[in-house]
Parts: sequence; C-alpha cells; structure tokens
Amino acid sequence: MRAHPAGPRHGDVSTSPAIPIAPIDAVQLGELAAEVWPITAQRSLKGVMHVGGVDVRDLAAEYQTPLFVWDLDYFRSRLAAFATAFADAGPGPTVFYAAKAFLAGLAVREVSAAGLGIDVCTGGELTLALRAGADPANLMFHGNNKSASELTQALDAGVGRFVIDSFEELVRLAALAEDRGVKARVLIRVTVGVEAHTHEFIATAHEDQKFGFSLAGGAAAEAVRRVLGLDSLELVGLHSHIGSQIFDADGFEVAAHRVVELLADVRDEHGVELAELDLGGGMGIAYVSDDDPLQIEDLAGRLRVIVERETASRGLTVPRILVEPGRAIVGPTMVTLYEVGTVKPIDLGGGHSRTYISVDGGMSDNIRTALYDADYTVTLASRAPTVPATLARVVGKHCESGDIVVRDAWLPADVVPSDLLAVAATGAYCRAMASTYNLVPRPAVVAVSAGTTRLVLRRESVDDLLALDVELFPGPDAS
Amino acid sequence: MRAHPAGPRHGDVSTSPAIPIAPIDAVQLGELAAEVWPITAQRSLKGVMHVGGVDVRDLAAEYQTPLFVWDLDYFRSRLAAFATAFADAGPGPTVFYAAKAFLAGLAVREVSAAGLGIDVCTGGELTLALRAGADPANLMFHGNNKSASELTQALDAGVGRFVIDSFEELVRLAALAEDRGVKARVLIRVTVGVEAHTHEFIATAHEDQKFGFSLAGGAAAEAVRRVLGLDSLELVGLHSHIGSQIFDADGFEVAAHRVVELLADVRDEHGVELAELDLGGGMGIAYVSDDDPLQIEDLAGRLRVIVERETASRGLTVPRILVEPGRAIVGPTMVTLYEVGTVKPIDLGGGHSRTYISVDGGMSDNIRTALYDADYTVTLASRAPTVPATLARVVGKHCESGDIVVRDAWLPADVVPSDLLAVAATGAYCRAMASTYNLVPRPAVVAVSAGTTRLVLRRESVDDLLALDVELFPGPDAS
Repeated sequence: MRAHPAGPRHGDVSTSPAIPIAPIDAVQLGELAAEVWPITAQRSLKGVMHVGGVDVRDLAAEYQTPLFVWDLDYFRSRLAAFATAFADAGPGPTVFYAAKAFLAGLAVREVSAAGLGIDVCTGGELTLALRAGADPANLMFHGNNKSASELTQALDAGVGRFVIDSFEELVRLAALAEDRGVKARVLIRVTVGVEAHTHEFIATAHEDQKFGFSLAGGAAAEAVRRVLGLDSLELVGLHSHIGSQIFDADGFEVAAHRVVELLADVRDEHGVELAELDLGGGMGIAYVSDDDPLQIEDLAGRLRVIVERETASRGLTVPRILVEPGRAIVGPTMVTLYEVGTVKPIDLGGGHSRTYISVDGGMSDNIRTALYDADYTVTLASRAPTVPATLARVVGKHCESGDIVVRDAWLPADVVPSDLLAVAATGAYCRAMASTYNLVPRPAVVAVSAGTTRLVLRRESVDDLLALDVELFPGPDAS
Repeated sequence: MRAHPAGPRHGDVSTSPAIPIAPIDAVQLGELAAEVWPITAQRSLKGVMHVGGVDVRDLAAEYQTPLFVWDLDYFRSRLAAFATAFADAGPGPTVFYAAKAFLAGLAVREVSAAGLGIDVCTGGELTLALRAGADPANLMFHGNNKSASELTQALDAGVGRFVIDSFEELVRLAALAEDRGVKARVLIRVTVGVEAHTHEFIATAHEDQKFGFSLAGGAAAEAVRRVLGLDSLELVGLHSHIGSQIFDADGFEVAAHRVVELLADVRDEHGVELAELDLGGGMGIAYVSDDDPLQIEDLAGRLRVIVERETASRGLTVPRILVEPGRAIVGPTMVTLYEVGTVKPIDLGGGHSRTYISVDGGMSDNIRTALYDADYTVTLASRAPTVPATLARVVGKHCESGDIVVRDAWLPADVVPSDLLAVAATGAYCRAMASTYNLVPRPAVVAVSAGTTRLVLRRESVDDLLALDVELFPGPDAS
C-alpha cells in the first residue's frame, strides 16, 4: 500500500489480497532465521525469545514497550568485521560509521573503540560525537547544506575530513578555514550518474538530485580546480555515493570506473594523485529471509578488485578505499519489542480474511514501512508458537490507517493482547527517524550482552514530550 | 518521485522532466494566493512578507529558522467558522478539533475558548489537553489501541466520549468503568466501506483497515448489542470516518446513507434512537492554488441536508452531527520559514535544468512530501521577486536524497543563500510529525497577531536533543 498524496490513507481496499506465502506450521513459525535476527537471538526451551541472554519478558517488564533491544556483541562483531575487511596499511580509519542510521553516546564509544571513524552530517551529530569522546580527526563531515556555524564548529573541533557538496560550501569553508589559519582536509562529492538499490542499478549521464558535483557536466573537475587553488583547503580525495540497500557490487563497479577516470584526469591536469577514494555507504542488509546482500568481506574484496583494476588500467597508484556503512553495521543488531493491544480479524470477502494485530507503537518508532514500503520480519516473542499461522498485519496505535509496522506476516492464530512481538533488523533509521506523533513517547534503547542489560537511550516521559510547550512550561526562553 | 522500498532514493533520474507550469513573471511570483496563504499574509511596499503584521525577517532573527509562523487570528476565525457552521441546539460542542494535526497548550486554550471539543487519541494528547485546561467533558477519546492505563486515565479524568474501536476495548472499558462505578459515554466506530480523498471516493462492502467495526460484516451491529447490554457503558452514537483531504461531500453522502441505515436497524432491534452521529474528519484544504475544497459553511450545509434526508426517509429523529476537523482548522494557519543555504543548478540533459535550493530544515519538520507525495506552495519571503522564475526544487539538509520539501516550484532565478523562503499551509501534520532525524532540532512555533509575537513551542536545543542519552547524561533513570 502506498500512502495517499493527500494524507493518511486506509489499507488496501481489496477483496482478493495477494497472499505472500503459504501458511506454515507452528515449528516453522518459531524459527529465528539467522539472516535477519541478531546473532544472540534464540528461544529458550520453553520457546521464549532471548536476546543477549536476556528474556524479552524481563526486558518489557523493566523498560516498558515499545523497546529497542540492541545486541551489543553483534554490533561489536559487525564493527570488527568491517574494520578487518576494509583494513589497509594507511593511517587512520577507512570505515566511517554513518551516524544518521543510529547515534547515541554508547554507539560513538563502541565505534571509536573498534577503530572506525564516524560520518556526521549536522551540528547535532557532530556535537554528540564530540561529547561522547570521538577523535575529531576521525570524523567526516557530510551534508548538502552545512551552515556557516556548523562548519565553524567542525573547524574549531579539528574535524578530519569535510565532504564538499557545492561551490557555495567550498567558498564558505575556505574562508572560514583561512580566518582560523587552518587547512581543512576535504573530499569532493562527485555524482557519477549511478543509482543503485538491491539488485538493480541505473547508469545515466545526468543525475537529478541535490547532492554533489556532476561528473558529466564538469562541475566535479571544476571543484577540484578551485580546491587545489586555495591555500586553506587540502584535497585528500573524491567521494561517490550511489544508493542504499545495495545487495551486490555491480553499481559500485560502474561508479568506480567513472570516478577513477576523474582521478586520472586530475593527475593529468594537475599532476596530483589523490590519496583517498570514498565509495560511500548503501551496503544492504536482510530485512526478510529472502534478502541476500553480499557478506561484508565479499563486498570488501569485490570493491578492492574493482578499484585496483580501474586504477591499474590508468597507471594510478591505488588510493585508500573508504566506506561509510551505517545500516549495514547497526541495522541487524536491534529488534523492536511491542506488546499486542488488540487483535481484529477482518473479513475481506471472497473467503479471505486478515487479522489486524495492533501494537503499542507504530509509525512514530518505525516510519520506514509507510515511507519506503519497507518489509520486516516479525515473530511471537514471549512464548512459543503452538498453533498454525494466520495472515496478519501488524499495525500501530496511531490515528492513521497507513500506520503499519509489518504489512504481511504469518503469525500464530492465537496471538492475544499482552503477547510480545519482536520485529527484526530495526537498528537503522527507526529510532533515528522516530517522531512523537500523537504525543507517543519515543521508546528506550537498551543494550543486552551476556545476560546483562544497559540502558542506552531512556524512554521519553510525558514531561519530556511537553517540555518545549511555553504555555505549559513558561521559562526564560519564553517571550 | 516515490521513496524506494529499500531506503532513501535519489531524485528522479530523468533527462526529460515534466515541467509543471509555464514560467511566470516577477509580479506573479510575488503574489500570495488567498486560497493557500494565511489571511494576514501580505507583502510590504518593499515586497517583504509579513504574517500577523510581523516582518518575516524579524521573526527569523528572533526565533531562528526553520520556524513555524502561526497566524493566530486566522486560527481563531477558522475555529469560529466551524463552530458556527456546525452549531445546533444541543448541549456541548459538535466540533471536535483533531489534536493529532497540531497540539500545544495554546491550541488547547484557543480551541476551548471557541467552544469546540478536542479529539485526542493517546495518553500524551489527553495529558496535554487536561494540563492546558480543557474541559474533560468536551474531550473525545479515539484510537484503535487504547491501553488499559490510557482508558483508566481518561475515565478518572471524566472524558466525555470514548470512540470504541474493537470488542477487546469494549470489554476493557466496560470493566474499568464498572470498577470505578462510572458510566462511560461511548460512540461505536463503524467502517462503512467508503474511502474518500479529494474528488474521489471508493465504496465497497469490505474495508481492509485497522479501525472500527465492519457494518457489512455485522460487527457494528454486534458491538451495539453488547454495549447496550452493559450497565457501565452508555451508547450515545455512531461514528464514521471516511478519509482525508476530502474536497466534496459525495463520499460523506454514501457513508451517511449506510450509517443511518444502522441507526434505523438499532431503533428497530432495540427501540433506541441514538442521539449523535459523528461523521469524523477528513475535510480538505488547499495546498496549491488549484485545490478547491468545499468552504466550511457549504460543507456543513451539505452534510446537514444529507443526514436530514437520510434520517427522514427512515422516520428517525435527526441526530446531532459531530465532526472532527484538524487539518481543516489548523492547516492553512501556519507557514514554515526557511533560510536558503545553497543554490545548485543541475543540468538534466536535453536542454532542461533544475535548480536545487537547499534550506535549513527538511523531512524532519515536514515529512509529508516524502511520505504522501504532498504538494506545497513556496514563495520568496524576505524580499520582492524582481526577476523571472526558474524551475526549482526546494530540498532539506538531511543526508537523504528523498529529503524534498517542495518538489516543483517556480522561484525567482536570483534566489541566493540567506534568502528566506516561506512554505504555505504547514499547520497540520508537520510539527506534529516532526522528528529529530540527523539530530536536527525541531523548530519553534511562534504565534503572530496584530504585530505581536508569542512563542508557543520553543525551538529544541542540542541539550534537549541529547537529554535521553544515558551515556552522556546518566541520571536516576539510568540502570
């Protein structure tokens, strides 16, 4: 279902719904596919789901629901896998965790401890990274519209890399750096005309989007020229980002071919070989068990082969390959726990029915289903499935028909209020994009590891929700 | 452009973009169409936009951007227009402001002062309404998954109407009311098989959505039976809600026909004539000047004629008609002010180009463009347009290509950084659905009236943004 342009919209009105898969038995219903669930997610002998060795019923009792449960060991292992897969002989990190996917103080510390850098794109993300102790030299500052005050903050902090996105920013950053007597290290974001998602990519000459400098139009080459002509900027490399939720390396191959051509042109025109080639993020993860993204080490190997071949063919020294995974690191490491509130079988006509299962969160804690038609995997978590499945739709508690968490799911036919459901792979772009729509408090994030818990983000209180309301809390800010 | 299921997606990749309208001259560019702009929005002799008699440059300087500017007089006049249009001889309000569109303490006070009730759908909305002094008797409690604690809170507060949405809730509410020795006044939400948007409606027997009791399937009649059999519930009426952003009365006509049939069945089976018929919300507004929603008084007149005819034909006393406008009241009364940060002309090939204008907010303060493909009207606000237009796309500062505020707009070709843009009709579902994605602070809301300003919601600070982070702010909540 697609949300209506004009606003909230009902679920599909259809008397012959497409049935996604055949009904399955209770044993299959209880299985936790390794592709989508955190590495420590398992069922106890009695069938209760545990994550990080902790019973989900205990988590719900202590931290309330909805709740993001973060498998900290799995997060660490994915950090380590990326660090190893993309390791090279150069100084400093090659992997920059994309903060936009999920950021918290603990994430900053774990990422830093694993030796990765962090990609931030606003003053808010930069502030959090710095307060949590990130090394500014290992920060990369992204964004199509960094303000003068954000650039100033980043320069003063000593941020290690700026990804320049426009001529205006180039001039702005150069002037601010010059004022401070510093040299800002920059990469130029190049739009190479490749857009990739999952198993497809589109390659064109022109790219109709807000980011970067066009390769085909010559803006990228001109940006290189201008940066090289400014004393307050040091050009360390080129940057290309081609899409999101990418499952194979084909799109990267075309992008690398094009951007390496620019590296060669820069060498030919300016006699400079740039040291870094940032291939951006967009590495995909499995939301449902049919998803088959490349494994981290396979992707790293493919990218290395591609870049080596492309640079060798042009007689260039192989640059350092940088990447910016966010979803690919944190996405699979969280699950969302919800409590069921109502269960409503709906007759769709023609012998079909659908069971609407309402949970205590929804589009405020996961907008991706409504925003991107995203698919998720859901399971009954607080007990073992013991009966066969019914076709269910897991919906939220918001006053909007498009408030859907999982569009099509097979869940045990005996799900009742107070059961706990778990949704897999909610680590990226769920808590990060959370709203307080309908004044629903944003859920807590709790890390679990080896049977212990650690609160990362506390649950929002009603007082938190109302704190900005000057009518209720007139303070020094009120006018 | 549609966001990709898998995640963020670039803008349309196209070398032959559809051009929305013909280029227009500078004079036309400066016009503020009465259909979409607040009633007090006008340009000074020098061409600077004022709202409520206040210069937008002064607003930006004092409250920063992005900023929601709320025309308080216009809000009051729309409240009064609804109250008058739907007035009847009965006691208490017939118009219930839908809090989900936009809620703040000042909104509660203004709505209450105008004699309207408020439709809330969570404990958070209920708490805010009560703290700001709303009369609980004039509150209507909506929602498909009200928790036991929310129902308890509402019963204890003396909320005047509960819209029952499921059999589970019916039992839950009855038991809680019985425990307290009170009688809860309830309406039953009926799904009548009508889904309406703008100038279209679909009528079916079955409705594939989470809300309400099916009329066709008999669940609605069964809910009536059960409520009438319970001492702790008082059935005051039926409720039907058919869609959103509805421009005419055709869908309401079919819905009224069907739900009045149920009123007649209830009379025939139980000898009871229900006093209230709630036709829900969904009344549309103009986002662009081509939009032509029915005027408030016309809509009220049409609904009254429809309900009178339908009830007369069945020999029923005409019930009180209740409505729940949210967007239709608050939507047109706000504009969002943004400051331009970058301006980037993009060659699309084939002689076409598009100017990407980046502003200092985006999908965090207005998700509707990405979520619903919503259209908006935008104008240069801080000065008069003096040159002809260029085809522009107004985009935000978030690290996501789908972060678009206004997809297609004609804006003066000389827009530069530090210009202020104003986007019309952002009162509903913008601040209410705001996120802190990329740790971008949520904007302030400032009311303007007769040359004065009054802060309603203060701008979020970085400390507000990080307040839930236990790693940075370990407090008594941390474990």
